[in-house]
Parts: sequence; structure tokens; C-alpha cells
Amino acid sequence: MSKKNKEFVEKITAMEDDFAQWYTDVVKQAELVEYGQVRGTMIIKPYGYAIWENIKNELDRMIKETGHSNVAFPLFIPESLLQKEADHVEGFAPEVAWVTHGGNEELVERIAVRPTSEVLFCDYYSKNIHSYRDLPKLYNQWANVVRWEKTTRPFLRSSEFHWQEGHTAHATDEDAKQETDRMLNVYADLVEHYLAIPVLRGRKTDKEKFAGAKYTLTIEALMHDGKALQSGTSHHFGTGFAEAFNITYLDENGKSQFVHQTSWGVSTRIMGALIMVHGDNRGLVVPPRIAPIQAMIVPIAQHKEGVLDKAYELRDQLKSLVRVDIDASDKMPGWKFNEYEMKGIPVRIEMGPKDIENKQVVLVRRDTGEKEFVALDDLQERLPALLEEVQQNLYDKALTHRNEMTREAKNMDEFKQAVEKGGFIKAMWCGDLACEEKIKEETTATSRCIPFEQEKIANSCVCCGKEAKEMVYWARAY
Amino acid sequence: MSKKNKEFVEKITAMEDDFAQWYTDVVKQAELVEYGQVRGTMIIKPYGYAIWENIKNELDRMIKETGHSNVAFPLFIPESLLQKEADHVEGFAPEVAWVTHGGNEELVERIAVRPTSEVLFCDYYSKNIHSYRDLPKLYNQWANVVRWEKTTRPFLRSSEFHWQEGHTAHATDEDAKQETDRMLNVYADLVEHYLAIPVLRGRKTDKEKFAGAKYTLTIEALMHDGKALQSGTSHHFGTGFAEAFNITYLDENGKSQFVHQTSWGVSTRIMGALIMVHGDNRGLVVPPRIAPIQAMIVPIAQHKEGVLDKAYELRDQLKSLVRVDIDASDKMPGWKFNEYEMKGIPVRIEMGPKDIENKQVVLVRRDTGEKEFVALDDLQERLPALLEEVQQNLYDKALTHRNEMTREAKNMDEFKQAVEKGGFIKAMWCGDLACEEKIKEETTATSRCIPFEQEKIANSCVCCGKEAKEMVYWARAY
Repeated sequence: MSKKNKEFVEKITAMEDDFAQWYTDVVKQAELVEYGQVRGTMIIKPYGYAIWENIKNELDRMIKETGHSNVAFPLFIPESLLQKEADHVEGFAPEVAWVTHGGNEELVERIAVRPTSEVLFCDYYSKNIHSYRDLPKLYNQWANVVRWEKTTRPFLRSSEFHWQEGHTAHATDEDAKQETDRMLNVYADLVEHYLAIPVLRGRKTDKEKFAGAKYTLTIEALMHDGKALQSGTSHHFGTGFAEAFNITYLDENGKSQFVHQTSWGVSTRIMGALIMVHGDNRGLVVPPRIAPIQAMIVPIAQHKEGVLDKAYELRDQLKSLVRVDIDASDKMPGWKFNEYEMKGIPVRIEMGPKDIENKQVVLVRRDTGEKEFVALDDLQERLPALLEEVQQNLYDKALTHRNEMTREAKNMDEFKQAVEKGGFIKAMWCGDLACEEKIKEETTATSRCIPFEQEKIANSCVCCGKEAKEMVYWARAY
Repeated sequence: MSKKNKEFVEKITAMEDDFAQWYTDVVKQAELVEYGQVRGTMIIKPYGYAIWENIKNELDRMIKETGHSNVAFPLFIPESLLQKEADHVEGFAPEVAWVTHGGNEELVERIAVRPTSEVLFCDYYSKNIHSYRDLPKLYNQWANVVRWEKTTRPFLRSSEFHWQEGHTAHATDEDAKQETDRMLNVYADLVEHYLAIPVLRGRKTDKEKFAGAKYTLTIEALMHDGKALQSGTSHHFGTGFAEAFNITYLDENGKSQFVHQTSWGVSTRIMGALIMVHGDNRGLVVPPRIAPIQAMIVPIAQHKEGVLDKAYELRDQLKSLVRVDIDASDKMPGWKFNEYEMKGIPVRIEMGPKDIENKQVVLVRRDTGEKEFVALDDLQERLPALLEEVQQNLYDKALTHRNEMTREAKNMDEFKQAVEKGGFIKAMWCGDLACEEKIKEETTATSRCIPFEQEKIANSCVCCGKEAKEMVYWARAY
């Protein structure tokens, strides 16, 4: 179908009817992603990539401001290197894509396409760290990684995905602990202040932690359908990898010590969160701070004399203030309204002959649909302020939704009822793996995090009734 | 060896003695790159990556300003897709890394790790281009690609490298031709104005063109040792790929037409050019416009009261004007001088007790070694101006070198003598592949480009003596 004939945007499935289909429809209709030829790979299209690039730019700035340097490590890992840390290889080997031939030659040793790069950084650190003066090492890379997943979905679980992975080495356990905390807070800042998504901060249980980590910190967000999404993780490795890779340094007294390491990552999965937290039945909703286009000018009756000139003039006036674009194509305004609502552009600016006469424009918010008439003289002040209001409202709505969808459970009956309603469940836990596994088996809910902000809901474990150690957030999750 | 004891930078091989070893020494001592574990892969270290990031940021801006959108296409290509265009697969198949297993399963079809992404974009365009209204498609991606090379060297030829690859589709041959020209000019602008490297612009011979292209445009630079380096290429595909992948659109008259395509790329190879054009026996020399640190403050007698305070004050005054850093470590000034000369930092700022007393600093240029005393009051004006002088001088020096190393040859004797002296050789060519191959066989020089600026040096081909068609630049090359 040519665009000329496509006067109306194709309808998308209502999220109440089929959330998974709604998601797929939005991803497609908002032109974010298309499937690649190899199973589970994705083509990130210009609009999807522009959003990711804005997220990336903010996060990259934060990573640099906290003292880290970008590097580029290889895509390829020799099999023997991947096997050096036992827990780690066990966690990742089943989903590795293996290169066995270079050109026409069969390789002597199989090569893993990196599923994550801990072992590469460890190998490097073992050769490049000698003295306490070489510490800390604070490296980050923006990279693609591959995990051969059984079931895949755009952004949420793709066999190749894009991310940043930080890998650091420190002189003391305390330094590594502080780094793990610091980066979790950077992630929370990014997701809350730029993506307008409130997050829970906490620690993963041992069952859910990263393969090879001492502990994993996580930020967890709640999607519109009541399922949770892990949105960023920061791992404290202790000296586990350092012992496996023999990464030592001479301290100030000339004594050999193992380094203490961390790693942390945020991936294109976060795009899935963005879609599922803010989207609605008209499509995507992009928070202004990361929107590639913050305001789209749609001229009304643009064939009338002077309308297009005025619209372009307006664009030129606004472009140093906000990311603004204009659609002067010959499509009907109604088509354009649908198109930019589908793409989640935060504000639409309508301008027709009457508006020009009255020296005003109409601003239409994507998040609430509210319209307001604004005098041209006031627009340079009003538009940026409105964008901030939209940003704040998206966050507030998401927070309200999460609060409404967070329930307490004191026993398994309450737990099971809560699971059926969706959302987070706050429940006490004895700390035993057996209870965590039983809960998962009976409800398909998993432990999301042991929050830093603990509450004492009850004295006993929601599952076994024995003495509770901690409160845990549980949920069905992506 | 711990840094504490490393009071003197290790010597590097003189370029006159062994240019290849000099290159390897600079790459290592300036901390640009280290080898990865898999043959021919590289770890780009913080300083190397910071230079690449600056190049990337400038080029990305230019690519966007010329109307292109960034996207991300998959790393993986099914073997059958790679085979769709005959010339293309013939050119790349011998150096493909093949994935044969996903986790524990053997794949039904082998997967290529992309050596370049033409076929992926073609497959996408065949599904996404329908009408003339969908054209042009102007896509670019920053990506890693893999070519299983026999001999590798950091930056110059690595089995994995980083680049941007633009892939565009147009309604007419003329549009595609203009795009091919436009991007070659963007590359020339980048390399000349930011990397301070003069380039020859021209067309590749059919022998040297890209596998599957109608023609290839190139920019060619001359290294310090007299060998040439291809520094960026822009390919016009005509309708070759469109026919193989059936990429058609309906024109304004409703008639089905093949699209006309281009692709163009600049890679981390350009880092090799940077090193080999500007470097000297004291190490790397980085042009100011892409230098991560443009000026390094080295306090003199920093243990004396007030010196460090003043040095930090200076840094704070300068940091909004230039990219400035300070080395306040307890290493000796002489060690620091060597270190930052090795890293090619354009200007060193020395400041000691006497300078503070005299309200001045000493500026030392990396390119010429010249020193000048500058009053603190004049520094904010002088430093940026000096950086521009350094930038210009690097370009001028490289241009003078290239001019001195460019010779004419009217017959094979002259050609052979010229080849032994190194540099570019301007010689007439009849246009026959046989002569081009003979020249390569007898001299190891290859045709670098048929320059846009033609000169008529002689009437007959330098090789066969038959009527000459064009003047060609020849050289031994990386």
C-alpha cells in the first residue's frame, strides 16, 4: 500500500483485549523495529533508533561524569576463556552463538560471540593491573551482544541486543560496593528523570543474581499490564572473578591482593519498558526529555495562502528551544494527527488560517489529549513549560499506577489472589531458596528485589510460615 | 613494572629504522590498542577510543546534517541471503566468520557474522520501498564488522573493526550519483579539516572497486613512509543489487522501476592514517580538533606553596574554552613531558613558581616543539589560536610531504624508480586490466585512484605504450 492511499493509520489491538498483540502492533505501527532474517534479531528503524540514541546520549554523559572511560573490547571470546569462571560459564554457555569457521578453515578452538564481556575485561585486567596506583579501573563500552534465546520479542528479548556494559576493578571491597551503588543510582536517575518511569531499587535474591556475582542490585519497573520488567542491574563480584583470572595488585605495603570488581548494564530492553509503561490505545507515548521530536507542527488548510509560510516561520522560531518538526506533506491533517499520536510525539502544534489571524496556535498534549490556545507571543515560554508538565505527568501517572498495583500478602492465599490481579506483591520471606522456588512454581511470580526500603509486613515467611528475614517484591515479569 | 618505577617512557623504534615496528610501538606506548585473545581482534583502550569517539562525533554530525538517519541492523546474515548478489558473495565469502551452533543446537543454515551489510539493507528495502514517495531512503549505522583476515595489524587490518556504513536507495541514477559524490566530499571534509590529512579524490579502477558496485569513489592519503592508505570509500551500485533483491518502486506514472543504490563507509582504519601521517619519533601527534585533551597542564616544582592551587585555577579558567587536563601526580615533570609527547597532546602548559611570579605560563607545541611565554591575561585568547595554528601546520606539513613524494612516470623504468622512492606516482593508463595487473606484479604498486583532477602527462600508457585514457595515481599501499 503506498502512503498516498494510506489515509488512515491502521488500527492497533486494544491493550485490554490482548496486551502482547498491542505491544507488537505499537512496535510496528510506530516504526520502531522490524524483524531481522535470523531468528530473534531486530532491525531498529530510524525512529526507534533516534529514541535509543537520546537515551544513550544521556546515559553516556552520566557514565562519563562519574569518571568512567569508554573502550571497545572484541566481539569474540575463545571458548577456553569463557570457561574460566565456573558459575559464569554455566549461566551463559547454553545461549552462546558459536563461530566454528573462518573463511573456509575450521577453527582449532570454537569462538563465542560475546553474550556479555566479563571474561574479556578480566583477562585484560589480569595483564594491565599491577599496583594500587593502577586502581580503580573504570571502563565502559557500548556494544552488541548475542544470546541465543528460545523465544524472542522486539526489545524485550532479542537474540542480539545493544547495551552498555561497565566493568570496573577496585582496591577494596568497600570501593567496589560504592561503585555498585553509584551505578544503580545512575540507572535509577536515567529511568526516573528521563524515561519518566518510577523504579524500585533493591537487591536480587541469590537465585536471581548474575552468574558469577556476589550480589546483584536492580531497578524494577511495572508495566501497564501489571508485569514487572528488570530495567538495569549492577553487580558486585567481590573477588570471585579476580581469583579465577588471577587479577592481583601490590598494595602500598607491597603485598599482593586480589582486586574487587563490578559490572553493570542497561540495554535496549529499556525501550520495551518505555512502550509498556506510557503507551496507550492510540500508540506510543514518548517522554519529552528523550523524544526525538518534542513538538510536531501540523498546518491546517495549508493550501490557503500564507499558512505554510507561517508554519515554517514558527518552526524556525522554535527550533533553538525544542526539538520541533513540521509535516507539510499533502496528507490530510486527520491522518497526520493519527500518525504522530501513534509515534507518541509529546505535543502537536496546530496552526490554520484562523489561528494566524488570531495570532495563536493550538497545542495538543499527547498524554492527556488536552488542547490549549496559546498566543504566539507566549509560545516560546509556554511550549517548554508544557513539555515539562507532560514529562512530570507521565511519571506521576506511572507512579500512581504502580502504587495502585502494589499489594501486600501475608500468606499464600493472599499471594495467589494478588498475583491474579497483577502488579507487585510485597511479602515477607524466610530467605530459603525452597520457598522462592515454590512460589515461582505455584504462581509463576518471581522475586523481583529485596528493596533497600524495607517494611515489616509480618513476622513470618509468606510461604513456609517460618521466621521472616526480609520483605521482597514479587511479580510476574518479562 | 609499576608506574611508580617507570620514571622514563620506554624508547620507541625510530621510524627511519623500522617503520612497521615504530607503528607498533606508538600504538602500544600511546595506549591506543592492545591485542584481543582471538587472532586479529583488538581492544581499543580509553585514550584510543576517546580519539575515535571525537572522529565519530564529527562524522555523525555531518551524516545527520546531510539528511541521513541512524539505524541498527543485525550482526547476523543467513548464508542464503549473502549469496544473492554474485559479485558480492565472491568478494566477501572467503573472509566470513561462520556461526554454526546456537547453544547446543547445530543450526540448519550457517550464519555469517556481517563483513558488511549491503544484503541486509537490500532485503529490508525490498520489503519497505513501494512508491516514489518512499524515496530516497538515507540510512546509516555505526557498527562492528568481521573479516577473517590472514595478516592483521591494529587499526589497519583487524578481523573485527568498527565503522559507519551508509546505505541509500534513490529513484534515479542521477540521485544516486549525487549521493555518492556528496558522501565522498563529507569524508574528504572530515579527513582534511579534522584529521588534518590532505586526500586525493577520485574513482577506483574496476579491479579495485567494491564487490558488487558499478563504481567506487575513494579518498587516498599518503603515510609518512610513502605508502598510501585508502581512507574512505563511497560506492554507486546502480541497479545491480536492486535487480538481485528485486527492490522496485512505482514511479509517478505507476510504472515499476528498480531503485538506484549507494553505500559508503569510514572505519577505525582512519586511526592508522592519523598515526602514520602525523606521528614522529617521540610518538603520536593528535590534531587539536579531534584531540581528547588539547592542552595538558604540567605544574613545575609543584611541591612549592601555591603552585598546585594556581595550576588548578588555570585549568578551571580554561576548561570552557579548550579540552584541558592537569597532571598533578607525583611523577617528575620530565616523565610527564615524555608521556604527553608520546600521546601527542597538541600543547603542553608549564607553570612553575617563577611563572606564577611573572603572571605567565610556558606553552610548548607538540608539532614543532616551539616554546612561548604567554601572559596569563593573554592566555584565553592565545591558547585557542595556537591550537588552530597547530591544526593548520599539521595539514600543511602533510601536504608538503605528499607533494614532495608525488612523482610522474612516463614509462616503466621511470615508474620502477619512482616506486622505490615511495609516494604517489602519476602515470597515464590505457584502461586495460592487463596493464594494471602487470604493474602490480612487477612493482607491487596498485592503482589508488583515477583522480577527478586529471592531468595529461603523456599520450601513451605507462605500461603498454598504447593510447592512454586517463591519469592514475599509483602507490604501494596499506
